[in-house]
Amino acid sequence: MRQRLSVETYVKGVLSGDRTTLSRAITIIESSLPGDRLLASQILQSILPHTGKSIRIGITGVPGVGKSTFIEAFGSYLTSLGKRVAVLAVDPSSKQSGGSILGDKTRMEKLSRDPHAYIRPSPTNLSLGGVARHTREAILLCEAAGYDIILVETVGVGQSETLVKGMTDFFLLLMLAGAGDELQGIKKGIMEMVDVVAVNKADHGNEQAVAKAVMEYRQALHLFPETASKVPVQVVACSALEGTGMQPIWKLISDYYVQTSESGFLQHNRQFQREDWLREQIRQSLEDRFYENELVKKHITSADQAVRSGEKLPDEAAADLINL
Amino acid sequence: MRQRLSVETYVKGVLSGDRTTLSRAITIIESSLPGDRLLASQILQSILPHTGKSIRIGITGVPGVGKSTFIEAFGSYLTSLGKRVAVLAVDPSSKQSGGSILGDKTRMEKLSRDPHAYIRPSPTNLSLGGVARHTREAILLCEAAGYDIILVETVGVGQSETLVKGMTDFFLLLMLAGAGDELQGIKKGIMEMVDVVAVNKADHGNEQAVAKAVMEYRQALHLFPETASKVPVQVVACSALEGTGMQPIWKLISDYYVQTSESGFLQHNRQFQREDWLREQIRQSLEDRFYENELVKKHITSADQAVRSGEKLPDEAAADLINL
Repeated sequence: MRQRLSVETYVKGVLSGDRTTLSRAITIIESSLPGDRLLASQILQSILPHTGKSIRIGITGVPGVGKSTFIEAFGSYLTSLGKRVAVLAVDPSSKQSGGSILGDKTRMEKLSRDPHAYIRPSPTNLSLGGVARHTREAILLCEAAGYDIILVETVGVGQSETLVKGMTDFFLLLMLAGAGDELQGIKKGIMEMVDVVAVNKADHGNEQAVAKAVMEYRQALHLFPETASKVPVQVVACSALEGTGMQPIWKLISDYYVQTSESGFLQHNRQFQREDWLREQIRQSLEDRFYENELVKKHITSADQAVRSGEKLPDEAAADLINL
Repeated sequence: MRQRLSVETYVKGVLSGDRTTLSRAITIIESSLPGDRLLASQILQSILPHTGKSIRIGITGVPGVGKSTFIEAFGSYLTSLGKRVAVLAVDPSSKQSGGSILGDKTRMEKLSRDPHAYIRPSPTNLSLGGVARHTREAILLCEAAGYDIILVETVGVGQSETLVKGMTDFFLLLMLAGAGDELQGIKKGIMEMVDVVAVNKADHGNEQAVAKAVMEYRQALHLFPETASKVPVQVVACSALEGTGMQPIWKLISDYYVQTSESGFLQHNRQFQREDWLREQIRQSLEDRFYENELVKKHITSADQAVRSGEKLPDEAAADLINL
């Protein structure tokens, strides 16, 4: 195990914006060693007053839509405006691929060399719930380190969008202009989370297909109920490859931020997210304590067996285990 | 409170197929009174050896697709073959509507008068998790009462399909032939759960639109991965109103039942469902115990407040509450 520094050293390093210390602090919050959990908790508690000042943006889209290229282009546009940008990822598949550090940095070559950008790949070997918690904590650390804009990337499958929605202020869905069946890919569940749909690959020669798709998405969006923020969902075209469309997207997001700050929705939504995080944390801690209990460990296999075979009701088996 | 009978009286009544006793037993499993929970557990434990012999069929579809008319037609077809049919519902909206007993029975007028059919509306005033548990238990009671086929109806929104999928052997999605945009309504998540798609309203004069929709759904289904059962997903037309298409649907289901029984998938799937139910039950019991704890009740509001305002980390607040 790499040597740990004192709480003060981490806190001072993070608050001064030192990227190496930030990375080491994130490594600690991702660690499952009991000593590290305590250290993580102390660091987070100390930096807490310095958090909350960024715009937190979730970015999703199916594989192949060009998310990395988009983040490279959008992130570079933002740093050109003088913003400091952190990129985090919630990638449920990282468990299988076993780490994508090289992958992420290679995919975002320009941004990874930008002194105003910080790219942190998905934590590996964690459950989706674990990834969620650590990403929430990494957002706080990046904010304390002075990043103005946090981009949280997720692949458009399964439950990861819901998790990212639950930790960001603004949700961007990246889509492709397809061949006639554009609407097929829209999952109702995702559309209801989205604040902006960006139709990507409006590259030279493809403008017409993209314009058609933009129209179709706009029409489709009429079928959805009003968003909780009351700000209408927008559909825009962009070319991540050619870097076009970044300015309008940033304008939409910064306008959204101003409007929801004024209406109070932004603050209300963050309060709600924190409360949700507390419930989730309680649930997780209760389960951890239960499954780590020595008596439970001893009896759970036979309880499982009795339930699987249909001999015993889950209700009864659960009560027996809990009352051990 | 209505008077309770002895465990033996409930068990004997249910096993003899007495519908009044079955209804009263289901009322007990839906009750949240501590005495009733104990009674429910004793009844369920006694009838457990007499369960598992039915075919459990989940039926979903958006409001307006004709689910009630379909269940009326399909249920009547099944009782005409000499089957005994029970209809249960998982309706997350029942919380708002506050009970739909009259609604359900009116909607299925013929079936509700059929001596071989038993219709039980959604339990009211329960969370979705509560509805799920009680529906699983109601399935067991109906099986013990001799019903061969259990139809579990759910509206096609939110998480209720996942719950119904988790308690049935076979999942039927009812769809409509629309006007060119049929595919729009297909949620990828639902399609991956489905064993058969029935395109409804193949009524006189509408046959062509339905045939077109059937073709389109068949094509769309090629995009989905193989099902866990290895039995290919089928698309069929039916008219619930005119009662056509019931025989082919029943043939698909009974063939599926034979094939998956022989391959062992049916049994394996049910074992997996029971194990899942145990995990869910453990989680629920741990949370119930926690939130009912007097010390937790006393301190949770201030913990919530500290987390909402951003003063305290959820992690720390959760640990403080758990260690009370």
